[in-house]
Amino acid sequence: MACYRSSSLSFFIVALLTVLISPAISAGDSSYINPPVNVGSRSSIASYCESWRLAVETNNAGTWNVTPSKCVSSINTYYIGGQFDSDYNLVARYALAFAGKVKNRLDGKDAWVFDIDETLLSNSEYYNKAHGSATYVSKKVQAQAFDASLKLYKGLKTLNFTIILLTGRNESRRSTTEKNLWDVGYSGWEHLLMRSPEDKGKTATQYKSEQRSKMVKKGYKLHGNTGDQWSDLLGFAVATRSFKVPNPLYYIA
Amino acid sequence: MACYRSSSLSFFIVALLTVLISPAISAGDSSYINPPVNVGSRSSIASYCESWRLAVETNNAGTWNVTPSKCVSSINTYYIGGQFDSDYNLVARYALAFAGKVKNRLDGKDAWVFDIDETLLSNSEYYNKAHGSATYVSKKVQAQAFDASLKLYKGLKTLNFTIILLTGRNESRRSTTEKNLWDVGYSGWEHLLMRSPEDKGKTATQYKSEQRSKMVKKGYKLHGNTGDQWSDLLGFAVATRSFKVPNPLYYIA
Repeated sequence: MACYRSSSLSFFIVALLTVLISPAISAGDSSYINPPVNVGSRSSIASYCESWRLAVETNNAGTWNVTPSKCVSSINTYYIGGQFDSDYNLVARYALAFAGKVKNRLDGKDAWVFDIDETLLSNSEYYNKAHGSATYVSKKVQAQAFDASLKLYKGLKTLNFTIILLTGRNESRRSTTEKNLWDVGYSGWEHLLMRSPEDKGKTATQYKSEQRSKMVKKGYKLHGNTGDQWSDLLGFAVATRSFKVPNPLYYIA
Repeated sequence: MACYRSSSLSFFIVALLTVLISPAISAGDSSYINPPVNVGSRSSIASYCESWRLAVETNNAGTWNVTPSKCVSSINTYYIGGQFDSDYNLVARYALAFAGKVKNRLDGKDAWVFDIDETLLSNSEYYNKAHGSATYVSKKVQAQAFDASLKLYKGLKTLNFTIILLTGRNESRRSTTEKNLWDVGYSGWEHLLMRSPEDKGKTATQYKSEQRSKMVKKGYKLHGNTGDQWSDLLGFAVATRSFKVPNPLYYIA
């Protein structure tokens, strides 16, 4: 089943559901995979959770529903300890390094696609560093920019890339989305593509592929695409290079 | 430039080249990326190297030539400490879980593709656990099976999948390759596809895509594909699900 991202999909809820509902590992296509033989010790749990996170980021895990309950703590550490920031920053730097080598035709058709939630904007202060606990930022609160994404975005603008924003958010949220983006430093995008009523029920992969395909038909060359979900990046009309920023908190088909 | 894998591409050589040649980070398309601002402390180096490894495994790093010199030690720890095995095992388990849910048509056309080197066979005892140093196993020595891959392979056979082996090794190595595979427990594959003279100069992605395409034209349905390189998995005629086993030691285009 496809689930549609909204800013209400916070880690708090994910973690809570995880603890309440899921004693088992969530695996490919929601199937159950036997836990590793030696999960008793702290270190083997930590090792498993690191493997799980890698499996998610490489798309080896496929469809998954919830963070394994035994990994909630280690993912907390992943955020609080700075590894998430390190991972995120390096992806953005690889993206900018690639972009710097693209021969720009200066006709406005050299484009870069960005997802919004958990790519340009961080919807949740997933972990309150002062208290070490998950907190939820409601839709009414402005989402913050990822520093690394803002730097990448501005770098691409400087390199004369045309920016295409492609989000799973509905059209009804256009004005609040634009205001949020402007307020935190993003500006000058060419397109902000949002779900219209006719896109209802489509998986993110299908909807986003269709939108990218429309852009290609308009003559854009999609050099890069940055997203936190594989469904932002795969399908058809894919960009020359895809950059997957980390998100071990939830999965969207 | 594409480089072609052979068993002589051991970590020993990679590490040696790294130390001798590369003071800088090897980045996307061989470009130079400025090192992180705060790489002075041990912990920030460890953090960077973990990010680098994730970038490689997610294909965010793109083309890269050598392991960053500052990360040789942490990759050593990655192997010796068991995290590599943990990561590898979990990928194989996700693959088998997916395979178990495929409706098998029992006509011999439900297929699974395997790369060989660093996927079915481990060419190098990259790290000699007793001495903590890189060692090289020459072509004359039998390569060992990855336990996780052998378990996956046998599980797929039990599930009546047709096995297609697709390797960058040349035809000239057919008999020694077959003997090695048999000796360590692999048997009953349907095809062993190797590079012929006409494939010379093709990138791995091109060559492997063409071979998969031929299999599809023969009527095979490629449900799964397992490889240690993105060039084993991407291109055209891709499998329904791709499973990337870890390899932070070298890159093949």
